[in-house]
Amino acid sequence: MSRDGAELAELVDQARDGQPRAVARLISLVEADSPQLAELARLLGAVPDRAHVVGLTGAPGVGKSTSTSALIGALRSAGRRVGVLAIDPSSPFSGGALLGDRIRMTEHATDPGVFVRSMASRGQLGGLAAAAPQALRVLAAAGCDVVLLETVGVGQSEIEVVGLADTTVVLLAPGMGDGVQAAKAGVLEIADIFVVNKADTADAGTVSRQLRQLRAMAAPRSDWQPPILHTVATKAEGVAELVSAIGEHRDWLADSGELQRRRAARVRSEIEAIALATVRRRFHQLTGAPALDGLTDRVQAGELDPYAAAAELLAGLR
Amino acid sequence: MSRDGAELAELVDQARDGQPRAVARLISLVEADSPQLAELARLLGAVPDRAHVVGLTGAPGVGKSTSTSALIGALRSAGRRVGVLAIDPSSPFSGGALLGDRIRMTEHATDPGVFVRSMASRGQLGGLAAAAPQALRVLAAAGCDVVLLETVGVGQSEIEVVGLADTTVVLLAPGMGDGVQAAKAGVLEIADIFVVNKADTADAGTVSRQLRQLRAMAAPRSDWQPPILHTVATKAEGVAELVSAIGEHRDWLADSGELQRRRAARVRSEIEAIALATVRRRFHQLTGAPALDGLTDRVQAGELDPYAAAAELLAGLR
Repeated sequence: MSRDGAELAELVDQARDGQPRAVARLISLVEADSPQLAELARLLGAVPDRAHVVGLTGAPGVGKSTSTSALIGALRSAGRRVGVLAIDPSSPFSGGALLGDRIRMTEHATDPGVFVRSMASRGQLGGLAAAAPQALRVLAAAGCDVVLLETVGVGQSEIEVVGLADTTVVLLAPGMGDGVQAAKAGVLEIADIFVVNKADTADAGTVSRQLRQLRAMAAPRSDWQPPILHTVATKAEGVAELVSAIGEHRDWLADSGELQRRRAARVRSEIEAIALATVRRRFHQLTGAPALDGLTDRVQAGELDPYAAAAELLAGLR
Repeated sequence: MSRDGAELAELVDQARDGQPRAVARLISLVEADSPQLAELARLLGAVPDRAHVVGLTGAPGVGKSTSTSALIGALRSAGRRVGVLAIDPSSPFSGGALLGDRIRMTEHATDPGVFVRSMASRGQLGGLAAAAPQALRVLAAAGCDVVLLETVGVGQSEIEVVGLADTTVVLLAPGMGDGVQAAKAGVLEIADIFVVNKADTADAGTVSRQLRQLRAMAAPRSDWQPPILHTVATKAEGVAELVSAIGEHRDWLADSGELQRRRAARVRSEIEAIALATVRRRFHQLTGAPALDGLTDRVQAGELDPYAAAAELLAGLR
């Protein structure tokens, strides 16, 4: 085994012992799309699917970070080991996470039972789908019982996060303008649990009434009816109820067979995303006639249409 | 040429004549990822890169649809032919567009110089990157001078839309909670023009002051300094200034060589996305030992790690 390989093996052992520094370094490796990822996957081997992955999602301003922090507190009080993976879709541009939000979680920074990591999705096609399951596996290997997966906004990264979570919590808050309206088309079909945060402000009742109406109109996805909870995350109000609801959903997942179905779908997407990323890397290594730059020039010059160019690119792989 | 091919050729001719029904049918073909897409690309051939593609982006509730509608009005008054492509990232779940928003644009529904189409990104990896340039090409072939590309929320679809636009307009509005804060990490690096909408409400000044501060702190991306404009889209106030700013940015793009650079990047992504979509289709056609379902089972059983599974999947293509 190479020196790098030996170091990696040591890091994996340390992560299994729950050493935060080793967990952090391994997740950084995953985030950086290191060439050691295949080796890391081999070393991690079969990690028991013990960690319950809870996705938290909602528009900016609903209080996601505060809710995550309150959830960490409640889960720690119950003796659970908690991982937090904050997915930051803005980062492909800035190269950095939304640290302002993360700072609110520093109250848990010295707790050895909590691992908090940000992870950029880097705007690569399928980047998150390929990398996040590896990061989840690292956190599971480190003994996390629950992993909170937090993301920002709506859109593609949202969809990817839903694919990664066992339980998806959709947060809303009063006074977010067209929030419910705009979210309508998507949230009903992704939410396992609704949370109306900032429930001590005016119009919280309006938001949950709108949600109930939407829920009543939608075709049920299963015999799980997503509950609508009220929280004031800044005061930890309603958070115990949220923890209970997450536990009830986990039990339902296990009993109904849905857990197995969701996890198989996750593994399937992961294999596909890793394979596509490999193909993509090969595209970028192609030189000469089938290279991307040359094909781009020919399409721009009107000599080739993009579908014909894509066919030439694929032919160049062989 | 097959009957389908002849029909497609006729549709393309009709779209070139600016017939709205033909434009609509072709964009539906693109959206549905029809097997005729390669043929459509061949028929469209080299479409002059005349249409200026303007991306409009911002959180739900900032007034994107109203702004789009006001922009259509101003551009039509100036005699420009306008296409609108509304990208709806929620649709992978609902299968439908946010029609409520689209209805506000019906004031332009009978104007033969305006084409408005929604397009779902369908949550497929690279789905938008592969399909949207084709839809833009259809609108350009139909004689559009300007295409407004509107999207919802932040995240991956946002990033993809920025990759498709010549000019990116980022909309903000007062009273959106953590709006500027949350958007901070990303918007500065994507915005060519900032618009503070709902400028007749309190705190509009605060929003533009925060934006100016952020802009001052950021490293300049180029010698284009993104202007910060104020609009009241519901009353069409400030929209003439926005049209001017878009024109100035277009001139800067052409003079600086940035237009050529952005369009080459767009074509490059398109070719790559089409090629990856082809590979992905082949994954799903694989049967027997290298098929995705079997690999998924083996990973879940702990017999195989996901990287080894991806390598087997790729080997199965040959």
